Amino acid sequence: MASAPRISKGLDDVVVGETRISWVGGETGELVYRGFDVRTLVPGVPYESIVHLLLNGDPPAADPSPEVVAGLRGAREVPESVDRIVDSLPTGLPPLEALRTILSALGDGSYPYPPTREQGFRLIARTPTLLARFVRRAAGAPPLAPRDDLGHAANYLWMLTGEVPEPARVRALQGYLDLLADHGMNASTFALRVALSTQTDLMSAATAALGTLKGPVHGGAPSRVSEMLDAIGTADRASAWIDARLARKEVLFGFGHRVYKTDDPRALALHEIARAVATPERLALAEEVERVALAALRRAKPNARLYTNVEYYSAVVLEAVGLPPGLFTPTFAVARTAGWAAHALEQASDNRLIRPEIAYVGPPKGRRWPRPVD
Amino acid sequence: MASAPRISKGLDDVVVGETRISWVGGETGELVYRGFDVRTLVPGVPYESIVHLLLNGDPPAADPSPEVVAGLRGAREVPESVDRIVDSLPTGLPPLEALRTILSALGDGSYPYPPTREQGFRLIARTPTLLARFVRRAAGAPPLAPRDDLGHAANYLWMLTGEVPEPARVRALQGYLDLLADHGMNASTFALRVALSTQTDLMSAATAALGTLKGPVHGGAPSRVSEMLDAIGTADRASAWIDARLARKEVLFGFGHRVYKTDDPRALALHEIARAVATPERLALAEEVERVALAALRRAKPNARLYTNVEYYSAVVLEAVGLPPGLFTPTFAVARTAGWAAHALEQASDNRLIRPEIAYVGPPKGRRWPRPVD
Repeated sequence: MASAPRISKGLDDVVVGETRISWVGGETGELVYRGFDVRTLVPGVPYESIVHLLLNGDPPAADPSPEVVAGLRGAREVPESVDRIVDSLPTGLPPLEALRTILSALGDGSYPYPPTREQGFRLIARTPTLLARFVRRAAGAPPLAPRDDLGHAANYLWMLTGEVPEPARVRALQGYLDLLADHGMNASTFALRVALSTQTDLMSAATAALGTLKGPVHGGAPSRVSEMLDAIGTADRASAWIDARLARKEVLFGFGHRVYKTDDPRALALHEIARAVATPERLALAEEVERVALAALRRAKPNARLYTNVEYYSAVVLEAVGLPPGLFTPTFAVARTAGWAAHALEQASDNRLIRPEIAYVGPPKGRRWPRPVD
Repeated sequence: MASAPRISKGLDDVVVGETRISWVGGETGELVYRGFDVRTLVPGVPYESIVHLLLNGDPPAADPSPEVVAGLRGAREVPESVDRIVDSLPTGLPPLEALRTILSALGDGSYPYPPTREQGFRLIARTPTLLARFVRRAAGAPPLAPRDDLGHAANYLWMLTGEVPEPARVRALQGYLDLLADHGMNASTFALRVALSTQTDLMSAATAALGTLKGPVHGGAPSRVSEMLDAIGTADRASAWIDARLARKEVLFGFGHRVYKTDDPRALALHEIARAVATPERLALAEEVERVALAALRRAKPNARLYTNVEYYSAVVLEAVGLPPGLFTPTFAVARTAGWAAHALEQASDNRLIRPEIAYVGPPKGRRWPRPVD
């Protein structure tokens, strides 16, 4: 019935548009933000300056970007009605499920289409504030006000813990946030652009993105890397554990990527950050597991071009920063709000409904209902 | 930098996969569910039987489907923790914003991937239950328990109003729910499939779908049809009002569709339903406005093949059923949960990450940060 040209089930080779925001070099192992190789920016460039770069196209006049610092500060205060929704969430809810409802709750009718830079600041500023509110409440602790004297990364840790974090941890988290801030047409950003293509509001689109990021094939798996390292325990057990797991045909988390067919530049950068912040024992375990896993995977699938992906050292870094595994993917979202805001502005600047075809292969038309239809 | 084949910004001519669920005949004006022309099914086939058809592929052994009636009944009861979130929503929130947070709140960690038929029943059963709870609370009324003696359409009206609705209204709403239950690869269903392609949970994917449906280019506009009819007031004013609006280059809601280049079969069916349920005055106004608008649009854009779309008579029917305009798009979602559930099961049955490419046209790589990066 449908005249079907070639089907592209994963849209692997379909180009959905043009972007000026970021470029993923899958063959060369590069990630470029607005012309800047991210590896030249981390971990020293403050997240606020990365936000500035992604939203504006050029670096700020000073670091951290005065415009973004002021913008985020002005956008942090959340309507009380949203706080009340956050405080109604069950304390046992996984933080990632909570964060989806938090983003949706932010959408209270005050985000008219088209999205604006100021709306983007609200998304970026309020995501960590409300996530921290939920996490503290779940732990029986009162919420903390954001601190204007702290940068975005340090303030996030402050709001979670009530302690001013050590500079080494702030630096590691800043590097993580910088590296995860955007990544071309990944599935969550694509979901955001699909949603926004109907001229829906920014918070609906960001909620769609978060729900998509949540899947283990996209952003939902880094905590499983920590679980794997915990289960292996010591470096000498890596080989036996991994062989047994592969013999059971189970997945090893932290390896392989849809786009990168070489080293993921973020994995390399996060490995460097891990060297600076992880304990020597954990780092040694992670490196040995990585070595053994890559060797085993390449033996098992010699043609698959499998490399360590961003999730592997994300887990090691976020652990060392002091975050529990349940906050790994929510923290990925905290980072990615910058890219989501930038892509929302770009999509709206030249919008068109994103609506593909699908080939119908069901029963031919003309069936008759088995009973009279009145 | 990116090797870019042809760009398809709206994915208009891209085929993203195969489906056995529904077929949209854009040139012939047909909508087919599993081989059945929808116009042969409405308004007499109960919504539960349409759910059965969409989920199972064949009609039930009896109407309404005993399996779906039992399934929805068993799935209606909502965890108290979700009721509490719904009761924390500000009463002034637009119902469509509320519904997005309601769908997200349903996702409490108890919807493991892959989605199941039982999870689908929960989505279909709980969406109207919780929407009605919100709407009643916003009006200062206590929530009502679902009634097992009423069908899905009648029960929805009962839970909203506390009155057993007249059969004519139930029949009209049933026809509406049947007609809106699925529609090929529309943007919200596509967003659901993109989300689910990461192996996220059904409620995350349904929340993404709702956030996408919300856009006025997709499902967010039928209330504007009512506003337009209200503004015009009487049939004799239609011509002057429409000419003035088009002269100001403003959109006329309810006309034109991305896929249909002839009469939308749902619009024709809803027009018939409207004849049975709307007041003669409102029907006459709607028909005259439609006639004048189509003539004016075709004069203005002779090559555009513009026809009345599904939203136009949706508005007239839902008004006559007794729903306020703020519930039009939420009721669209109540209908579409059936299609979302069916597409979720189909996507998961042969899943692959949906991740297109995007062509990078930003500044070339190699830029240097203007200050030293420590």
